[in-house]
Amino acid sequence: MDLGGTNLRSAVVDAGGGILWKTGIPTPPEADREEVVAAIAGICREAVSRARDLGDVRAVGAGAAGPLDAGSGVVFTPPNIPGLRNVALAAELDRAVSLPAFVENDANAAAYGEYRAGAGRGAESLVVLTLGTGVGGGIVLGGELLRGAHGTAAEIGHMVLDPTGPPCGCGSRGCLEQYASAPAAVRRWHRSVEDGTFPPPADWSGPLEGADAADLYRLAQAGDPAALAAFAETGRCLGEAIGSLVNVLDPETVVLTGGLAGAAEFFLPALEKTFASRAVSPAREKVRILTGTLGGDAGLVGAALLALERLPPA
Amino acid sequence: MDLGGTNLRSAVVDAGGGILWKTGIPTPPEADREEVVAAIAGICREAVSRARDLGDVRAVGAGAAGPLDAGSGVVFTPPNIPGLRNVALAAELDRAVSLPAFVENDANAAAYGEYRAGAGRGAESLVVLTLGTGVGGGIVLGGELLRGAHGTAAEIGHMVLDPTGPPCGCGSRGCLEQYASAPAAVRRWHRSVEDGTFPPPADWSGPLEGADAADLYRLAQAGDPAALAAFAETGRCLGEAIGSLVNVLDPETVVLTGGLAGAAEFFLPALEKTFASRAVSPAREKVRILTGTLGGDAGLVGAALLALERLPPA
Repeated sequence: MDLGGTNLRSAVVDAGGGILWKTGIPTPPEADREEVVAAIAGICREAVSRARDLGDVRAVGAGAAGPLDAGSGVVFTPPNIPGLRNVALAAELDRAVSLPAFVENDANAAAYGEYRAGAGRGAESLVVLTLGTGVGGGIVLGGELLRGAHGTAAEIGHMVLDPTGPPCGCGSRGCLEQYASAPAAVRRWHRSVEDGTFPPPADWSGPLEGADAADLYRLAQAGDPAALAAFAETGRCLGEAIGSLVNVLDPETVVLTGGLAGAAEFFLPALEKTFASRAVSPAREKVRILTGTLGGDAGLVGAALLALERLPPA
Repeated sequence: MDLGGTNLRSAVVDAGGGILWKTGIPTPPEADREEVVAAIAGICREAVSRARDLGDVRAVGAGAAGPLDAGSGVVFTPPNIPGLRNVALAAELDRAVSLPAFVENDANAAAYGEYRAGAGRGAESLVVLTLGTGVGGGIVLGGELLRGAHGTAAEIGHMVLDPTGPPCGCGSRGCLEQYASAPAAVRRWHRSVEDGTFPPPADWSGPLEGADAADLYRLAQAGDPAALAAFAETGRCLGEAIGSLVNVLDPETVVLTGGLAGAAEFFLPALEKTFASRAVSPAREKVRILTGTLGGDAGLVGAALLALERLPPA
């Protein structure tokens, strides 16, 4: 399962990470605890029932926004689904379908999915950056997900890029998330048009404030210089951060996923140029920087495979 | 053994990390391959002979400046001992004393020493920053040293602190090493006196250029405002970098070692204040930031304990 602020999703995943069936419903807005848990239990039961038609069902895995305790399966204060606050989600899922259930941070689940069944397949170690509304991440080292001593490893969006930079929702300043999320790219474009650095796009009607990352992508495809510059600057910031990450972790592979990764063609050249000036040798020449292959399904696949991993031996 | 540009050192270390005996000689300056290898073999033989008087000798471990291949024990292009270039050091040591010999990056060896027998004792995971002429590091996760996919993990000194900062010896700009090494602290002090931000110290005779980190420490003890400001700024920079490191790795403990760590009383308050504004919760409240307890012997102890770890089971 992948439990996000927009959609609640469930899928039947095989042991190799293949999706056999999937479904999803909009996350009930402003739902209380009971409603959210009922909605989640409902699509979980549906998936388990489909899975039983297809074969042997072993476990349920769910990715949710942290902070949470993967060990006990309790979600603490999810920013995107307030109704899940302090819910013992693993226990609720177990109760709903009578199967061993496991909960993971959603960014970790997506990273594990790309590691086992996506762009990171075959690597022993990888770092995944999820570029969306925010910037998240997951780290796999020696085949193991790095959860950290207090459950907060891979908060890659909160690496500092500029100590004097803009304030971040985390309470700090100049975090990577302020430079490399989808809204940051749009903001950069918007600002550069508003301050006259670039002319407004020729065929743009309506207020610039209404633009989103999809608009930015279309503008870049049409050759809009402000959009191209905004993506290039996003790439430069990502190159700095990935350079630091590689100097600390030296993984085999770095994978970019999340909505903004779909625009990689416009930011990857600047990313790679900056990375090459930042990372130490021989990692600089050898680390592979790839875009994810599972798209929005990485979290579904990873949550399922992690649940299978965590199942005690029969 | 700890093989540095200033001294070549050997010691007898017991299985608990205790040093039973040690010796050292100045690194022969401008020595060629044969001379350096002979000098190293000499103090290795001496330590092994002492060790045989004390008990059963199992293995030889040596820490040296990278880049090197810990697997094969070949040192590539050590910046501080040119005579060791492309030397199969593990094989040379084995030949000298007929014992299994293992080579490690010296910063990794020091980190492992603090992990097993120093300030990190009892932790499952730690990050060690070595603050000296440069800034190095070592990372232990789940009890294992993180070497990285290409042998360059834990190059903590080359995390970016400011993409527009001063050039670094690595070819990049604004690396942590340019802000938190001993020479960087002295440079900051020197500059702030020269530009009139602070008055020159009352009892200073001779050119400011001659000052070193020990002078800076004495000046701070005497209350020199420029020295205190230089240490505080060093602490602020370390707090930013350690905040990023904790957000990525979430270790139990962070250990500061190397010569500059001896002046921690003057930079730790600023470090902790910046760290608290930078790291995410609950790691922010729970990670312990400590100074090393093994001082300059951390590398000797760690190289020995790593060799014992790497010894195939009897």
